[in-house]
Amino acid sequence: MRQAGRYLPEYRELRGSTGILESCRRPEQVLELTLQPLRRMPLDAAILFSDIMVPLAAIGLPVRIEAGRGPVLDDPIRDASGLARLRPLDPDTDEPHVSEAVRLLVKELEVPLIGFSGAPFTLASYLIEGGPSRTLSRTKALMYAEPAIFERLLGILSDIVVAHLRAQLDAGVHAVQLFDSWVGVLDRDDYRRFVFPHTARVFEGISGTDVPAIHFGVGSGHLWELMRDAGGDAFGVDHGVPLDDAWATIGHDRAIQGNLDPAVLLGPWETVERKARDVLSRAGGRAGHVFNLGHGVLPDTPVEHLQRLVDLVHAETGGAAS
Amino acid sequence: MRQAGRYLPEYRELRGSTGILESCRRPEQVLELTLQPLRRMPLDAAILFSDIMVPLAAIGLPVRIEAGRGPVLDDPIRDASGLARLRPLDPDTDEPHVSEAVRLLVKELEVPLIGFSGAPFTLASYLIEGGPSRTLSRTKALMYAEPAIFERLLGILSDIVVAHLRAQLDAGVHAVQLFDSWVGVLDRDDYRRFVFPHTARVFEGISGTDVPAIHFGVGSGHLWELMRDAGGDAFGVDHGVPLDDAWATIGHDRAIQGNLDPAVLLGPWETVERKARDVLSRAGGRAGHVFNLGHGVLPDTPVEHLQRLVDLVHAETGGAAS
Repeated sequence: MRQAGRYLPEYRELRGSTGILESCRRPEQVLELTLQPLRRMPLDAAILFSDIMVPLAAIGLPVRIEAGRGPVLDDPIRDASGLARLRPLDPDTDEPHVSEAVRLLVKELEVPLIGFSGAPFTLASYLIEGGPSRTLSRTKALMYAEPAIFERLLGILSDIVVAHLRAQLDAGVHAVQLFDSWVGVLDRDDYRRFVFPHTARVFEGISGTDVPAIHFGVGSGHLWELMRDAGGDAFGVDHGVPLDDAWATIGHDRAIQGNLDPAVLLGPWETVERKARDVLSRAGGRAGHVFNLGHGVLPDTPVEHLQRLVDLVHAETGGAAS
Repeated sequence: MRQAGRYLPEYRELRGSTGILESCRRPEQVLELTLQPLRRMPLDAAILFSDIMVPLAAIGLPVRIEAGRGPVLDDPIRDASGLARLRPLDPDTDEPHVSEAVRLLVKELEVPLIGFSGAPFTLASYLIEGGPSRTLSRTKALMYAEPAIFERLLGILSDIVVAHLRAQLDAGVHAVQLFDSWVGVLDRDDYRRFVFPHTARVFEGISGTDVPAIHFGVGSGHLWELMRDAGGDAFGVDHGVPLDDAWATIGHDRAIQGNLDPAVLLGPWETVERKARDVLSRAGGRAGHVFNLGHGVLPDTPVEHLQRLVDLVHAETGGAAS
């Protein structure tokens, strides 16, 4: 998951007081931050060090990442004049550092590199709320009260997401992940009407390669069937629902990524082992399972637990720990 | 839901700069704050104005409610010495204002009064985290690393919850609701082991009356069958899953309360009406449905929408809007 190295002392040392978005603009630093976890343990894939706000900062929006809070936009986008502050993303001129970092990494790495983007809805939610929110009530209010503006916003963001992902694909990433992290706050009807068309357009816009695309949302079990139909070769699932139930719902024709609760790694090794073995046993050795955490690594996670976990998964499966 | 009147100007005027916990200690103010929404619209029940932190403040814990954040405990409880800061609740001496407010209300009201309490797990999460948290990672870390301390904490809190609810029952409330708001972050195994026994003990501790008990958690669809078995005559469900699916999962032998998304009320009336009619149509006129929001009323909600919603539900059902 993103910011994968923040539990490492060498990560904190290298980042120092540099803002995340500023770190993302330095390809040599992105290279190093992406490689750090792999120097500690034999992971089967690397995740590009980045942030979902990168393409929005790249088109000139004054977003920032506040420590302990998350992405913030002081003057949120809630009307037509807000929309006018957005413009298409031209990765070559707006964020050449992204392609550059991917190219450096692909040269260096012996394992696949996974790129990613926030999905249109999740990006829109930060722009509308102005910051993280548990209920996304302003996002929904705009969606219901001004559906035309909401849909134009998601349309513009869809184009940005496609451009951002295509730049990573052209530079050589081996898989991409679309994070629709907060879409689980919607009910099925609203997902179908307001999100599905845009997410489907993103997956269409990056089709035509044989690079797999992973689709992920937190607490979105009630939407899995719709999200699957919107697109994605693989699904990331969080820890709430047992992996076998989740896979049965999504369908065994898709790959699945998950789903150890990252908080388990804060407990004793015996708990980590028991819960990891449970995930593996529910996957049942079926092809298409990628062992992963249900969400990002938490900052206080002991490195030894991650290292032992990678070894455990390798010993049990002969591969596939990302 | 709690703090039900915060969308009303007369609520903000009466509360002024008084802290919520301080307001809860003034029975005359609790009376007025509980009655305010009923003066605006013909609701079928009243919810006691209170806060889930009331019984914890009553045993002397220095909890406070921070505006825009939630319950905060500066020195969180994470070990045996933390447990020593807790003691049993004696409602008669620790929080006589609770029973007093209930008695005043029961005399005044022409509709049933619903009392409530936080559930042991949700209360524990605030004490362990020291404040609101999206992941409850410290709560889980303690649960895994120090299960004996965690279980003693939940045991102590269960006794406090039973005493707090019994005081409300003895003073005359007509229903009680147990808010296990954040339990949805747990998987089924952990719920079964760490939460089920304590929640079951709470429902046992308040049994022996014919007052119905409602059980509620946010985003807890994967736990509904277990939560149902832990106890409750009725289930509150949030908006993610359509009401008919939720009711089928929980079982038609229980009553169900829900499940309009409170954020819908921030949109235009046409959306409120369409979504409310959808909930009613999924309930299908079956006895045992209590129309309600899936979570608390949001502060910016237009009062007119709530009033029209109550009228709509009454017109369609002949009752049961709370």
